[in-house]
Amino acid sequence: MRALVNIYYSEAVMFDEFFAPKSVSIVGVSLEKEKLGNQILRNLLKANFKGSIFPVNKKATISTHLNGLKVYPALTEIPEKVDLCIIVVPARFVGSVIEDCGEKKINAAALITAGFKETGEEGAKLEDELVKKAKKLGVRILGPNILGIINTYENLNASFAPTYPPAGNIAFISQSGALGCTLLDQCRQEGVGLSKFVSLGNKADIDEIDLLCYLKDDIHTRVIMGYLESIQRGRDFINVAGEVVKEKPVIMIKSGRSRAGRRAASSHTGALSGADETYDVAFKETGIIRAKTVTEAFEMLRGFSSERFPRGKKVLLVTNAGGAGILATDACEDYSIELASLTEDTKNRLREKLPSASSISNPLDILGDAEPERFEFTLKTISPDPNVDVILLIVTPQTTTKPKEIATVVQKLFKNEEKTVLTCFMGGEMIKSAIPILHAAKIPNYRDPDAAIKVLRYMIEYTTKYRKEEEKIRLFPVEKSKAKNILIKEKNKGYLEIGGGKALQIMKIYGIPTVENYLAKTIDEAVQIAKRIARPVVMKIESPAIIHKSDIGGVKVGVKNRQVPDAFRQILENSRKTLQGKNEIDGISIQPVVKEGKEILIGAVADETFGHLIRFGLGGRYVELFRDFATRLVPLSVNKVDEMIQETKIASKLLQGFRNEPACDVEIIRNCLLRLSQLVQDIPWIREIEANPLVVWEKGGVVIDARIKIGKED
Amino acid sequence: MRALVNIYYSEAVMFDEFFAPKSVSIVGVSLEKEKLGNQILRNLLKANFKGSIFPVNKKATISTHLNGLKVYPALTEIPEKVDLCIIVVPARFVGSVIEDCGEKKINAAALITAGFKETGEEGAKLEDELVKKAKKLGVRILGPNILGIINTYENLNASFAPTYPPAGNIAFISQSGALGCTLLDQCRQEGVGLSKFVSLGNKADIDEIDLLCYLKDDIHTRVIMGYLESIQRGRDFINVAGEVVKEKPVIMIKSGRSRAGRRAASSHTGALSGADETYDVAFKETGIIRAKTVTEAFEMLRGFSSERFPRGKKVLLVTNAGGAGILATDACEDYSIELASLTEDTKNRLREKLPSASSISNPLDILGDAEPERFEFTLKTISPDPNVDVILLIVTPQTTTKPKEIATVVQKLFKNEEKTVLTCFMGGEMIKSAIPILHAAKIPNYRDPDAAIKVLRYMIEYTTKYRKEEEKIRLFPVEKSKAKNILIKEKNKGYLEIGGGKALQIMKIYGIPTVENYLAKTIDEAVQIAKRIARPVVMKIESPAIIHKSDIGGVKVGVKNRQVPDAFRQILENSRKTLQGKNEIDGISIQPVVKEGKEILIGAVADETFGHLIRFGLGGRYVELFRDFATRLVPLSVNKVDEMIQETKIASKLLQGFRNEPACDVEIIRNCLLRLSQLVQDIPWIREIEANPLVVWEKGGVVIDARIKIGKED
Repeated sequence: MRALVNIYYSEAVMFDEFFAPKSVSIVGVSLEKEKLGNQILRNLLKANFKGSIFPVNKKATISTHLNGLKVYPALTEIPEKVDLCIIVVPARFVGSVIEDCGEKKINAAALITAGFKETGEEGAKLEDELVKKAKKLGVRILGPNILGIINTYENLNASFAPTYPPAGNIAFISQSGALGCTLLDQCRQEGVGLSKFVSLGNKADIDEIDLLCYLKDDIHTRVIMGYLESIQRGRDFINVAGEVVKEKPVIMIKSGRSRAGRRAASSHTGALSGADETYDVAFKETGIIRAKTVTEAFEMLRGFSSERFPRGKKVLLVTNAGGAGILATDACEDYSIELASLTEDTKNRLREKLPSASSISNPLDILGDAEPERFEFTLKTISPDPNVDVILLIVTPQTTTKPKEIATVVQKLFKNEEKTVLTCFMGGEMIKSAIPILHAAKIPNYRDPDAAIKVLRYMIEYTTKYRKEEEKIRLFPVEKSKAKNILIKEKNKGYLEIGGGKALQIMKIYGIPTVENYLAKTIDEAVQIAKRIARPVVMKIESPAIIHKSDIGGVKVGVKNRQVPDAFRQILENSRKTLQGKNEIDGISIQPVVKEGKEILIGAVADETFGHLIRFGLGGRYVELFRDFATRLVPLSVNKVDEMIQETKIASKLLQGFRNEPACDVEIIRNCLLRLSQLVQDIPWIREIEANPLVVWEKGGVVIDARIKIGKED
Repeated sequence: MRALVNIYYSEAVMFDEFFAPKSVSIVGVSLEKEKLGNQILRNLLKANFKGSIFPVNKKATISTHLNGLKVYPALTEIPEKVDLCIIVVPARFVGSVIEDCGEKKINAAALITAGFKETGEEGAKLEDELVKKAKKLGVRILGPNILGIINTYENLNASFAPTYPPAGNIAFISQSGALGCTLLDQCRQEGVGLSKFVSLGNKADIDEIDLLCYLKDDIHTRVIMGYLESIQRGRDFINVAGEVVKEKPVIMIKSGRSRAGRRAASSHTGALSGADETYDVAFKETGIIRAKTVTEAFEMLRGFSSERFPRGKKVLLVTNAGGAGILATDACEDYSIELASLTEDTKNRLREKLPSASSISNPLDILGDAEPERFEFTLKTISPDPNVDVILLIVTPQTTTKPKEIATVVQKLFKNEEKTVLTCFMGGEMIKSAIPILHAAKIPNYRDPDAAIKVLRYMIEYTTKYRKEEEKIRLFPVEKSKAKNILIKEKNKGYLEIGGGKALQIMKIYGIPTVENYLAKTIDEAVQIAKRIARPVVMKIESPAIIHKSDIGGVKVGVKNRQVPDAFRQILENSRKTLQGKNEIDGISIQPVVKEGKEILIGAVADETFGHLIRFGLGGRYVELFRDFATRLVPLSVNKVDEMIQETKIASKLLQGFRNEPACDVEIIRNCLLRLSQLVQDIPWIREIEANPLVVWEKGGVVIDARIKIGKED
């Protein structure tokens, strides 16, 4: 796993050839200005690239020149070494250019050309062939169908993007060229500085995971921003992203949220799989910050790129307007942000100099007529207060307010300090001149307290949660092969959905407590079993062909001893009606009625991209009505399990003991979830598994019913 | 009620004196430029006010002049009629200025001066005296503690705001002066035009309700925007706002959301009262659009002030970038926006001219290289399609994109059309020049598809829901005084919380079906009653001093006939322990065990500001755990009740019949809610009333338990 993240030396060198080439060739440079190749050439020149540039045009003669550069008829004709080859020729000619790359020992090819997988089957075939060829020749491909590459620290603009962004500490990966253009343009306008920009296109070879690995160690990059539409290698993504996030924050827009519904799987737990919810879980687990909108992404970038990470959670609001203070307080509650309480010492010092009408509290209101000196005094006084981790300064432009001078005060006080300071200079025309001063001092400014506090919330979460070592995963000794064999046997008989006694048996093998469960093949056997149990029993049809037993009258609850024969006959009759002649009845399973408890659901479902997701929540008949779930990816750890339990709205409170009820045995749930996680990792071809209900009492608990789905092709 | 909204002629005249005075006097104009009075004078002159201006300064001599205007020593010395008096003198002198207003027959006084209620008790006293005096003299007061008044159609800037906004169709009411300044400044920068601005200050006399009445008929105002921190006359507000919203949209920021928790009432239903939730309900019922943040308010203003109200719900997304289309589709799902399907005819016409790689679907992707002509052709072709109610055009700045020219196309096609068209020119520098062109054509532009679609959602809701006639309220014949007398009798005995049999009786009088309930004073009586019921019974202690009966062992469920004497004794014993010698036991109530059904809660609670709120939701023991409620204000109508039921997440689905269960009798719930609404309107001093559970079956239902709280002082 480590190897994935700490990329091999040779890979790092290859990526350097993409991002910091000493020489670039553009193959397919047209003499017409409007054409892409020509635009890329001009972009390279305009950005003032320091290395050599070799345009290639197959029609070039010995004397062809473009923008003062000699144009070569082929890559192979270039007399010098080429680090990066930008390919712009039509799709059908790309193959031979790749061959030339191989011949010239070029490792890095950025394939601008479109007309591959995105156009349909034929294009996909062409793309596959290309990748195979490139692999054989040792050429790595970025693209095809990309906007290009930018590295502001190397003056490299190997793209046809119309805007070149300012230099900064953010690396931006985009799966869409058009949105790449758009966001670059917005970066320019908002003064958001980038270290690198890279367009992913069809991701035929290099993908976001490779880039995350590379950017993890890139010294110019302090924040990684991504626009993604899909992720293929889900598990690798999680492992890599988890490691990268420990080094630097990663902010992602993942679009296509609304397609979620389409992939809803057949069974009801299946709703998890492939859905957008899975991306949410994956991002949450790795600590990737998911921005819902472009606006939100820029808000996050502003905050995270400041590198002013909060050392704690307590925020002081300072303002010159009561109303703005109220708005900010509202936002603090919305985002669960803790308000700092100033020490008595700080309060006394503030009282000495601030006007008596000021509110020495939080929000700290220094009044509408506050001049820059009053802001300076206040900020200086509160900054060293040990109770204040973060300062949010809210300035409204009132009659005598001097926003520019106040911004200068902020710059002076905090430019070289690590203190987490955010500002919210509200309004428009009057505060315009203040903003560049703030940004120059790496103080993120927001127009609205709500945005500032939202970002703060993410920053606090990032520093407190994701920058620490991971937990060990607990493993239990179990008879794995025994469980596996039961499933294989069923599969060989053609049954892909396994319920009742067999599913309970699998759980039991993995140490998950299950209800006593006996199979009766005859009425006599049933009577014997019921007598032994010596309590009212539950009787259920046991047939691999009947999954939703109660719907067909295949279940009887609270059957007394003397009622057993009748119940047996009735269940058989109902089941036979359903089976219509097929002889697939194993018998009738008999369980004692268990005492009332809280009904919980635990389950897992395989996601194509990310592996198994474990679900925990309120169980019982109405599980889909309440939808009170928490979800995590395998492997589970104790911390993850506790987070899951906390995350549910209803189940967590129910287990704690609602009103006068006693608390439930949470340890048994923790244990069941960890064991379930191990089970689906041991037998990864389990598509779905669900225990519902797991009845939990003050002490102990048991699974009453379970279902397992396995894949046909596994 | 009508009179509240359609203000009297004399009132309208008075407001015209505030907003369109022919002559203005400023009392308390200092000769120093920094002072407020001086600033207001300069603001009046700078805005080019056409009427007469009379500055007043008590130290003025016959020759004192300021900015070319003669300064008078007193209001009463002014030789001409004065319509509006702006008062800036210190608080203690205001009283005599008001007297002068009376003498000079000035009806309109805008009181800029601070130092009244907002400073504490003494200031509040001063304010009260002032209002009394003004009322006697027929002077209406705006303020005190205000920023002032602006009317862009009269070149009137009677404020000390540093920014004068552009003229437009939005009236802006602000309870905070500082936020007033801030938003005026933002209006200037964003080119958002105002008709009027008015600061409310302490609202000693004129409040938001008066202004809503006036602005309802103001021809220059098409949208009303408000920043409020509190509402005093809640019921009036609702009645007026409901009428105003039918004429023009009202957008409000109501801050102080986080103070909600503080006023949480004692009993558990009380959590409703006074809380921010109540404002949400009030705004929702009247159709006021509540903006959570300043940013959101401006987004709304942009959309609503365009007056391009959608004629239907179907939206077509047009874009030159696939990625942007996906982001917009995501947003459509988030905000439940319906995607339009083009007619075959439109599709064919598009296919004829658009490049073959275009996606003739929704989103309609006309590709990254789309030139202005392609945009023009596309927009022209789709605009008449009967399936398209709204067009959202999303433009990303790619290499060959010409945003300014595209904006010009949009302007040309839609400037004089009513079609609902919104745009989303994304990016920054490259699209800057397009925005003023769009805004000049009253096309609202957003930076982010998410914002555009959110606003659209509110616009669709506004036009489809709030612009229609209100429903009649159904009234049931009931014995009101009988119910009242029961409550009065209890109150006279000192009991303010009424449970058990008496609460059920009140409900029964109002036609709400309740379980059979008999009071047994002795074991013999209990046995008799149980025998008559001839089924297992529920026995409950009946004591005004015991409200939470089950918590103290005062309830036995499923008691069989022979167990009645024992149960009777046990309940008595448990209850006596709790009562510790007090003799407050009325007896034991006996009810039949009712058959299982869905457990619903209905209840009402009085809110100080807005009157009674009715609550409907999932009932039973875990009511506070699930918190699955909907809330509306009295009086309920059938539509409101149906909305409430729809609004709950769990209860609504449960009542429809979840999985294979039969649907429940919704008519009985509808009936119970309407009757409960009538009950709390008839007896408004009921503080809280709750039926939980109301057990509902396939046919019919009954209330099993109920509680009523009444006020001591009522």
